[in-house]
Amino acid sequence: MRILGIETSTPVVSVAVTEEQQLLGEAAFSTRQAHLERLLPLIDYLLNGLGLKIEDLDGFAVAVGPGSFTSLRVGLATAKAFAHALGKPLIGVPTLDALAWLLKGVSGLICPVLCARPREVYTAFYLSARNEVKRLSSYLALEPDELGARLQEELRAQIVFTGEGALQYWDLFQEKLGERASLAGVAQLRPRASSVAALGLTALLAKREKDLGTVEPIYVRPPAIRCK
Amino acid sequence: MRILGIETSTPVVSVAVTEEQQLLGEAAFSTRQAHLERLLPLIDYLLNGLGLKIEDLDGFAVAVGPGSFTSLRVGLATAKAFAHALGKPLIGVPTLDALAWLLKGVSGLICPVLCARPREVYTAFYLSARNEVKRLSSYLALEPDELGARLQEELRAQIVFTGEGALQYWDLFQEKLGERASLAGVAQLRPRASSVAALGLTALLAKREKDLGTVEPIYVRPPAIRCK
Repeated sequence: MRILGIETSTPVVSVAVTEEQQLLGEAAFSTRQAHLERLLPLIDYLLNGLGLKIEDLDGFAVAVGPGSFTSLRVGLATAKAFAHALGKPLIGVPTLDALAWLLKGVSGLICPVLCARPREVYTAFYLSARNEVKRLSSYLALEPDELGARLQEELRAQIVFTGEGALQYWDLFQEKLGERASLAGVAQLRPRASSVAALGLTALLAKREKDLGTVEPIYVRPPAIRCK
Repeated sequence: MRILGIETSTPVVSVAVTEEQQLLGEAAFSTRQAHLERLLPLIDYLLNGLGLKIEDLDGFAVAVGPGSFTSLRVGLATAKAFAHALGKPLIGVPTLDALAWLLKGVSGLICPVLCARPREVYTAFYLSARNEVKRLSSYLALEPDELGARLQEELRAQIVFTGEGALQYWDLFQEKLGERASLAGVAQLRPRASSVAALGLTALLAKREKDLGTVEPIYVRPPAIRCK
């Protein structure tokens, strides 16, 4: 089953095509305000390079946030248009799930952190075990200090931080948690379309497909200003 | 410091540009025999998309294997030509290191597995701790059964498998190791140029740069046929 994944939650826009457990191709660009202009040419480039047409895809998976207000909507509108035009299924994948899933296989807790407003982050807590990544909390919008304090008090385990917010507030998390905290590598710090596509495939196989109209962005808070 | 990473060890060729801890852009294509034709246009596309010229880069990092004989040489020749033409440093990054580093932050053992000949894999054992990924063994060429048996006997810990070879022989590893084994996600199963670039930056900052002439492919065995 060939899935096109679209990820536009952060200033790195990415698209990927997977076929079952194989990554056929992926392209990612840091882009700031240019998601709208960048996205379609990027999909074209990827499909051309793979010798595929859009109708060769079996489904679409799109990151639904939390994340940047406008660019999420651009990603979602594009994915919905493709799915609608071709009569193929669309799966919405929460961005924090996709980010945590990049660390599938890790034993212990995973804490993806995305930038929201200045001095606020989006996060959730995940446990990776037995080849699954399970979300333990709801999606949260917290001040970085508050997040550090909660992790310090509530969870006595090794924690892997990932996401651009983790990088930005790494000194703070390390100060609060010491040797219990570690930081994912640069290749993991951004959500990736391949991860969105992989989670989309899992949802499709589990028949968790929904009506196109019900795939909507997740806003943990009202539309937020993108940090930095 | 802007680094161009080039990774051509497996049938997925990828290129990436990083700037310190940030991924500026990355493109990856599954390609089989077409590394030679694909690589330069892919680098062009990436740099154009980022609004960068080749002379805006501060250094080059290239995967040196083990891996596919011809495509490794294509990647290495390209990287050497750029570095030589521009007078910029070049770092060779072992492919298994780059693959293991994708799981930086994981607590426990990491076992990247690449396909070598039929029924033979390249591997090494890594420990991720304190924000470093340390290699514990030399680079090995083993039969998958032998690898499973060694892990079963020698190492009593949770092990995260990654790499295309891990996917291919997953049933075997799971049978031998049961709940101690887990498999990385699809986004991690191929070495990535962003990981090569990140390790290249670390080596450059540590002044582990070598003469261009001494950056050579790693062959654990004599040239091997690529599996599948």
